[in-house]
Amino acid sequence: MKAVVFDGTLKVCDLEQPKRKKDEVLIKVSHAGICNTDHEIIKGYIPNFKGILGHEFFGFVVDADDSRYIGKRVTGEINIACGDCEFCKNGLGRHCPNRSVLGILNKDGAFAEFITLPIKNVVEIPPNIPDSHAIFIEPLAAAVEILEQMTITQDHSVLLIGDGKLAILIAYVLKSTGCKLTVAGKHGHKLKLLEESGIKTILLSNFEKTQFDICVEASGNPSGFNLGLECVKPRGTLILKSTYTAPFSFNPFSIIVNEITVLGSRCGRFDRAIQFLQTHRFPLERLISSVFDLKDAVAAFEFSERHESLKVLLRIS
Amino acid sequence: MKAVVFDGTLKVCDLEQPKRKKDEVLIKVSHAGICNTDHEIIKGYIPNFKGILGHEFFGFVVDADDSRYIGKRVTGEINIACGDCEFCKNGLGRHCPNRSVLGILNKDGAFAEFITLPIKNVVEIPPNIPDSHAIFIEPLAAAVEILEQMTITQDHSVLLIGDGKLAILIAYVLKSTGCKLTVAGKHGHKLKLLEESGIKTILLSNFEKTQFDICVEASGNPSGFNLGLECVKPRGTLILKSTYTAPFSFNPFSIIVNEITVLGSRCGRFDRAIQFLQTHRFPLERLISSVFDLKDAVAAFEFSERHESLKVLLRIS
Repeated sequence: MKAVVFDGTLKVCDLEQPKRKKDEVLIKVSHAGICNTDHEIIKGYIPNFKGILGHEFFGFVVDADDSRYIGKRVTGEINIACGDCEFCKNGLGRHCPNRSVLGILNKDGAFAEFITLPIKNVVEIPPNIPDSHAIFIEPLAAAVEILEQMTITQDHSVLLIGDGKLAILIAYVLKSTGCKLTVAGKHGHKLKLLEESGIKTILLSNFEKTQFDICVEASGNPSGFNLGLECVKPRGTLILKSTYTAPFSFNPFSIIVNEITVLGSRCGRFDRAIQFLQTHRFPLERLISSVFDLKDAVAAFEFSERHESLKVLLRIS
Repeated sequence: MKAVVFDGTLKVCDLEQPKRKKDEVLIKVSHAGICNTDHEIIKGYIPNFKGILGHEFFGFVVDADDSRYIGKRVTGEINIACGDCEFCKNGLGRHCPNRSVLGILNKDGAFAEFITLPIKNVVEIPPNIPDSHAIFIEPLAAAVEILEQMTITQDHSVLLIGDGKLAILIAYVLKSTGCKLTVAGKHGHKLKLLEESGIKTILLSNFEKTQFDICVEASGNPSGFNLGLECVKPRGTLILKSTYTAPFSFNPFSIIVNEITVLGSRCGRFDRAIQFLQTHRFPLERLISSVFDLKDAVAAFEFSERHESLKVLLRIS
């Protein structure tokens, strides 16, 4: 089968189709999305992964212990947890210290014609969710994770920093809470997309610092981290959704003096993302900038780095 | 009156006795404690304060609008708030953006024979609290603040990093929750004091990293911040009680990936500190390393910087 491999360089290879073990299913991947994490791996910011990339996908089950799964349109929780540790027992397999992570840590990913996944990781996609939304379930789960971690209501003023593909999903999730939301970003055409959903936006170059109950940093840039800290009210919360490629200079003085809560936020629950897709209407399909064939994955990666790009998909089968 | 003034250098001066305004009381200061914040001011780490230092004190009311206050043994909430803003209206005058702070920001402090304070800041000290404990009400309020911000129970494993005078007060407060507490510090004789109260301690040089539900960083050293981050479990909390003298290199990667909560914690409620002193028996008097006369304040500051020192007091009247 064809697959996108990173072994120090990024390439499309012919590999053997994986064999499923007991309690695993074999999935024929339909489409997969390129995420910033994939770029971070190939740039070496996330070390120690070599193999097939890709963790945002949907496809169809083609083999399983229980034949009722066969033919189902599915995606998959990317954290493959041990099931036995303290975290797994509390429903937090996403933090299992023994986990592998699809396309990120010790587990070949979804930029391939076929993948295997434990049956417990497989999530069926309801028929009323179109493919063009289904592809966003994984990053949308990361966005809704914020609401798992804290309550946000219409009483909260919220500043979201960033206008990339994850930031836009976060904006939709925040908008759904009724909070007083402002999104500050660098790209007029991306902010325009949010404006069309009734979300207040501002270019960072025009942004005058003011104070919010909650700031969400999703720009991936230390300047976004610092802006978030400057704009959060005393006793407010700075939510971190982006990782950074390098350390930066930092003094937590204002965190202490203003008793700020800094809350790291990563992967979320797929069931909550699916529920969100079923109960809210946002034009996620408009986040798809381009679709490339799997064989053109290297070009797709290049295209997805262009600042005008949002989500770039690979058409796999 | 005599007072300890910082105007670029630290000195003992003769100044006019302050005049109280309406709604203020005049307090004759009995004793005052030297805090790390005082050292930070004279080293220039907390800019823009010139005047009389000191914010940990107790004394006696000598003049007030209401004569019933006269003669009372009191201390004072150090944040002098406007009473009108969003924070003040929510009982968070400690975060009032218009506040002055006794001996720290736009308000002469307590290293003086007399101070004035708004009557609303004055806190009467119950007679069953001895002077040797009363002097700790302000820093103890900062320690109990942690329990205002989050619930800590016997189910939590907690690592406290630091063994200075604030850290020891925090250790007593944490001990009172019944949590599984370990204190890691640099000074055997300070840790021994905690061991005598049944608190498990370890020298940092012997500490092998393991994971805790909650880490409390009170060492004031970036290495303590980093150790705290390394020792907090996924979804756990790192509480920051210390400020730092300079920025340091930082990558919030683990905060995001492990969904850590970083919680800044500063001043607390005096009523809670008094309640703590009335309901728990810890040997706070043993934290007093030395008592200097006000006229010897410069020597007192030097002594309090010695690594073997804990709380150094000024005897004022």
